[in-house]
Amino acid sequence: MYNSDTIAAIATGMTNSGIGIIRISGSESFAVAERIFLPANKNIKIKDAESHTIHYGFIKDGEETVDEAMVSVMKSPRSFTTEDTVEINCHGGMLVMNRILQLVITNGARLAEPGEFTKRAFLNGRIDLSEAEAVMDVISSKNDMALKSSVGQLRGKVSEKVKQLRSDIIYEIAFIESALDDPEHISLDDYPEKLLIKTDFLIKAVDNLLQSADSGRIMKEGIKTVIVGKPNAGKSSLLNILAGEEKAIVTDIAGTTRDVLEENINLHGISLNVIDTAGIRDTEDTVEKIGVERARKAAMDADLIIYVVDASVPLDGNDQMIFEMIHDKKSVILMNKTDLPSVINEDDLLEMTGKDSVMIRTSTKDATGIDLFENNVKDMFFTGKINPDQEVVITNMRHKEALLRTLESLKQVKQSIENHMPEDFYSIDLMSAYTSLGSIIGEEVSDDLVNEIFSKFCMGK
Amino acid sequence: MYNSDTIAAIATGMTNSGIGIIRISGSESFAVAERIFLPANKNIKIKDAESHTIHYGFIKDGEETVDEAMVSVMKSPRSFTTEDTVEINCHGGMLVMNRILQLVITNGARLAEPGEFTKRAFLNGRIDLSEAEAVMDVISSKNDMALKSSVGQLRGKVSEKVKQLRSDIIYEIAFIESALDDPEHISLDDYPEKLLIKTDFLIKAVDNLLQSADSGRIMKEGIKTVIVGKPNAGKSSLLNILAGEEKAIVTDIAGTTRDVLEENINLHGISLNVIDTAGIRDTEDTVEKIGVERARKAAMDADLIIYVVDASVPLDGNDQMIFEMIHDKKSVILMNKTDLPSVINEDDLLEMTGKDSVMIRTSTKDATGIDLFENNVKDMFFTGKINPDQEVVITNMRHKEALLRTLESLKQVKQSIENHMPEDFYSIDLMSAYTSLGSIIGEEVSDDLVNEIFSKFCMGK
Repeated sequence: MYNSDTIAAIATGMTNSGIGIIRISGSESFAVAERIFLPANKNIKIKDAESHTIHYGFIKDGEETVDEAMVSVMKSPRSFTTEDTVEINCHGGMLVMNRILQLVITNGARLAEPGEFTKRAFLNGRIDLSEAEAVMDVISSKNDMALKSSVGQLRGKVSEKVKQLRSDIIYEIAFIESALDDPEHISLDDYPEKLLIKTDFLIKAVDNLLQSADSGRIMKEGIKTVIVGKPNAGKSSLLNILAGEEKAIVTDIAGTTRDVLEENINLHGISLNVIDTAGIRDTEDTVEKIGVERARKAAMDADLIIYVVDASVPLDGNDQMIFEMIHDKKSVILMNKTDLPSVINEDDLLEMTGKDSVMIRTSTKDATGIDLFENNVKDMFFTGKINPDQEVVITNMRHKEALLRTLESLKQVKQSIENHMPEDFYSIDLMSAYTSLGSIIGEEVSDDLVNEIFSKFCMGK
Repeated sequence: MYNSDTIAAIATGMTNSGIGIIRISGSESFAVAERIFLPANKNIKIKDAESHTIHYGFIKDGEETVDEAMVSVMKSPRSFTTEDTVEINCHGGMLVMNRILQLVITNGARLAEPGEFTKRAFLNGRIDLSEAEAVMDVISSKNDMALKSSVGQLRGKVSEKVKQLRSDIIYEIAFIESALDDPEHISLDDYPEKLLIKTDFLIKAVDNLLQSADSGRIMKEGIKTVIVGKPNAGKSSLLNILAGEEKAIVTDIAGTTRDVLEENINLHGISLNVIDTAGIRDTEDTVEKIGVERARKAAMDADLIIYVVDASVPLDGNDQMIFEMIHDKKSVILMNKTDLPSVINEDDLLEMTGKDSVMIRTSTKDATGIDLFENNVKDMFFTGKINPDQEVVITNMRHKEALLRTLESLKQVKQSIENHMPEDFYSIDLMSAYTSLGSIIGEEVSDDLVNEIFSKFCMGK
């Protein structure tokens, strides 16, 4: 077990609220709690309490009563960190939580670093590194898909897959090493052919994981979405309608700032990071030109382009500019203002875009078609491809990079086989692949990397 | 017991954090929890679990795992509300907390109104109304003094005092009624004299409580402080230094917004609500005139005026204007820029202000004298007067108003005695006093008032 001092932090959110929690972990947790907690039942001693029990009483600073509290006792190894842990469940006022934290610290605990509780869970071997990283991903999940994939990772889905691949690889390494050590009894005849098949299988598996990383990024960070269209096509109305739905959802989440929401919109379980752009038209006006250029640039970086067409006015050269912008991109055409007489033939328009776009008739005036739009977007990005509840999805950039290194090493193995290199060449690259995969779950990673990972956590976790 | 449905809310702060709590209270709490919680130990049944125990497992929405969680079980009547209560201790992400809350609601609970948990604790008789009000005061406490007085009230100090006064009053009412019912055996001769003594005693007691309300307001809301001085005396530097201390204190309270802090400054245990004003000088400039007039008005409303004097320039007619502003007020004179050669005689200045002001030599350049200033302010408002840890302090306007009504009624009793009115006059006014006091602790208050009080609470409490 990792030899540790006793740490403490406020573990709940930093706004005034009903309940706050001060979390204490380490060998002195019970001693610290006893110094400041007066149980209503005087016979209770925290250190003698059974694990997973809750005790009512008062937090005392000498003679002064600081708050009324419930104290939870979790004994090693049955806790988040595997260490003796106390959670002080007090009133959730900023001042009172800070007072109690200070009191805990003056009575023998140390202020925890961000992520230090989870780091201890990792260092003490309760969870591996990818599971530890999932803790923060669960907390910062912005949509249901991201939450599902993070909870899956938290429950070890990524670890399981990685461990299985590693076990396949180490078997081959062991075989090669044994054969090289004891050539009289273990033959490597025909082995390169077998290893080639095995390596192709491994490459495919790693490649599949890497494929999931694109969906993973989109799940976690949202779909980079750009709304384009000619001036006055109804782009901002669309944004308002989408944001309006969001507003309705978010009413029960007091404290979320509006300025962030203006761009990050949650549809059913997925996030769109929407950028509204200036109306596209050919213009001599310098300022407007800059706006159009920005729209073009945003469209180039986008995962999804929403092309809003005013169906009540004819297509023109400006639409042609937009066709070029959406050419290589996932896009949805919203045929807007369908409450007015339409002058555009939809089939013609589809043909002109030169691709198989999704087209939806909408009226931002009365929100017609918006549901259909949402379902189409979800289908475009996720259906048939990924089910985060069932499959392994890579959402973490660090994991993606490790998988890319793994893939490189495996390809190197393949090439060595094809070039008829000696067997010890195979095992060197297999070992690299093994190590790269290990870094995902925290096998053989340096202290620096561990510190780097946990420093991104929030306080109290 | 108050007949209730089952309510739920997020009880912790609304920022992403390590831990979040979804609180459920009511007769269906355990049933709701069982529908969505899969304990890691399959033998555990929430409804059969012992009270005050914690259980590890997963929150499930059908087949989907929504989060890993610890579930606390508190059985009626041993809970905050006195009802069966479950607290789901999950990851503190905004999305995941909301997902779980939604799940709890679709599985049989209702979204709680703000303050509804505490309202139930009151309606179920676990706490009285003044204790219930203290819950919110503890949470919103801005400084240590306010926290101390709120925790005192939470622990029933105000209630105890009120109940004692009520018991004294009801004794007199009972005596009068008995005597009027049974004049043959109980005599009212000499009684008016005795009641007069008693009434004087009660008036004094209520008056003392009312006296504490001034300190109470200052504790709770902070000292209305205005900084005045001639232009360039160092007023803003002072505000920066005071705010700077605050900044240092507040660094560990992530999420507190800066704009509020700019005006609300915590010194050692007390709050100053500081208004910086325009430099005071006689001027023909219209805009500047308005500024000076505003400063004068702010000074009139202030609890404390800080008069910043630039010791390096001579006094003049403008200082005379300030002397008038601080005349009737608690004030501190800060002799500033003492790092420069001084041209002002301090004794002369004190004499000119015409009162016994506190004078402190400061240099906002290097923060000299600021500690002394803070201690002086604390002494001016609290020392020798009040110790919220020991004494009853009225901090609630509603209580103050009830005490004022009580005082009126008692004075009426006194007058009736002095006017030799019949005894039943005494008992009518004594009963009014009794009722007014009762409203503080929630005896005989209307449903409307109860709803009004709890609607000011935050969600989840």
